[in-house]
Amino acid sequence: MRIAVLGTGSVGQAIAARTAELGHQVTIGTRDVAATQAGAYAAWAAEHSEVGLATMAAAAADAELVVNATSGNGSLAALTAAGAENLSGKVLLDVANPLDFSAGFPPSLTVQNTDSLAERIQREFPHAKVVKSLNTMTAELMVHPRQLADGAHSVFVSGDDAEAKRVVTELLVSFGHTDVIDLGDLSTARGAEMLVPLWVRLYGRLDTAIFNIRVVR
Amino acid sequence: MRIAVLGTGSVGQAIAARTAELGHQVTIGTRDVAATQAGAYAAWAAEHSEVGLATMAAAAADAELVVNATSGNGSLAALTAAGAENLSGKVLLDVANPLDFSAGFPPSLTVQNTDSLAERIQREFPHAKVVKSLNTMTAELMVHPRQLADGAHSVFVSGDDAEAKRVVTELLVSFGHTDVIDLGDLSTARGAEMLVPLWVRLYGRLDTAIFNIRVVR
Repeated sequence: MRIAVLGTGSVGQAIAARTAELGHQVTIGTRDVAATQAGAYAAWAAEHSEVGLATMAAAAADAELVVNATSGNGSLAALTAAGAENLSGKVLLDVANPLDFSAGFPPSLTVQNTDSLAERIQREFPHAKVVKSLNTMTAELMVHPRQLADGAHSVFVSGDDAEAKRVVTELLVSFGHTDVIDLGDLSTARGAEMLVPLWVRLYGRLDTAIFNIRVVR
Repeated sequence: MRIAVLGTGSVGQAIAARTAELGHQVTIGTRDVAATQAGAYAAWAAEHSEVGLATMAAAAADAELVVNATSGNGSLAALTAAGAENLSGKVLLDVANPLDFSAGFPPSLTVQNTDSLAERIQREFPHAKVVKSLNTMTAELMVHPRQLADGAHSVFVSGDDAEAKRVVTELLVSFGHTDVIDLGDLSTARGAEMLVPLWVRLYGRLDTAIFNIRVVR
């Protein structure tokens, strides 16, 4: 599959490296290619020559599946730069969290309760097939879940398009996820995003980011 | 221990029955004793003669530990009826969720993100020792956790008073809980309360309330 991963941070790098490793054709999208190449990204890129780098628009235009791995506050701007026409009809896997660090730690959420970042993205790009997933764990576990309890923990998917959720679920299983829970339509992303404040507090207590929740039933 | 359980609903009944079974002296507090005795509560009370029934104030006055098992929207009024002087210096275990069903299902939260019901209660009753716990699971699992995966799931405690958290933790362990996670000060109750929207959606998918999350680490 041709995959565009929007965002050059640790989440984008983790997803790009893992999907490339699994044989997909992967391009990372960035706002400014030259600035990214001149920055900290260069060291990672040198070890991942199989992953391309392009503008948001060029990366998205060529992709079958687009991953939003930008920071939550920058997501709408990044997707606008990618271009609605380049997202239209495509699966848009949204892994971002709308975290607000303006008041320090712990962060609050910029949208919550009766709305979610995923729904905002869907409203702004009605022809994309938005699926929320993976936002409830650290980047390393998103793509290598088996390293914790041999994968005996849960990941959620939310979305309005059943086929798009099937594509994402298949990708998650290829990463090693064993318990993919379809929460329902995209409004269920509210629950997944509102889990993050608890995650942040657990992170503060457990002294590791390598943890996840399992839905025991 | 002398325990007052404020609230006559399923959560109050479950906690009252279980603590009485464990040998505590338990009184349920209600706004109107006569009305409660004339209602659906009577059938339950007939099978639990060891549990007393009194006004909010009388129940709280006599207790060493007070449980807030009222509905989230009615909690401040119920605790006001119990009386600040009857809560002063006591452990106040808050298990309520600030659910708003006014727009139907799924409910939203009336307070969230940068505040929580637990913190509101603490601000209103500064001399009570508020501990948030148990609000992240169904009543039956609160008090009989071993019936699910032999107790291999997690429960959280949040509070500003270490001794009060110790008392609550001991109570949780006596119920059968095996993984009590101290999230930190009372502001961490925001995370525990914001987990509830995800719980509600999982409940809609799993067709049972007998599930819980485990923090796998």
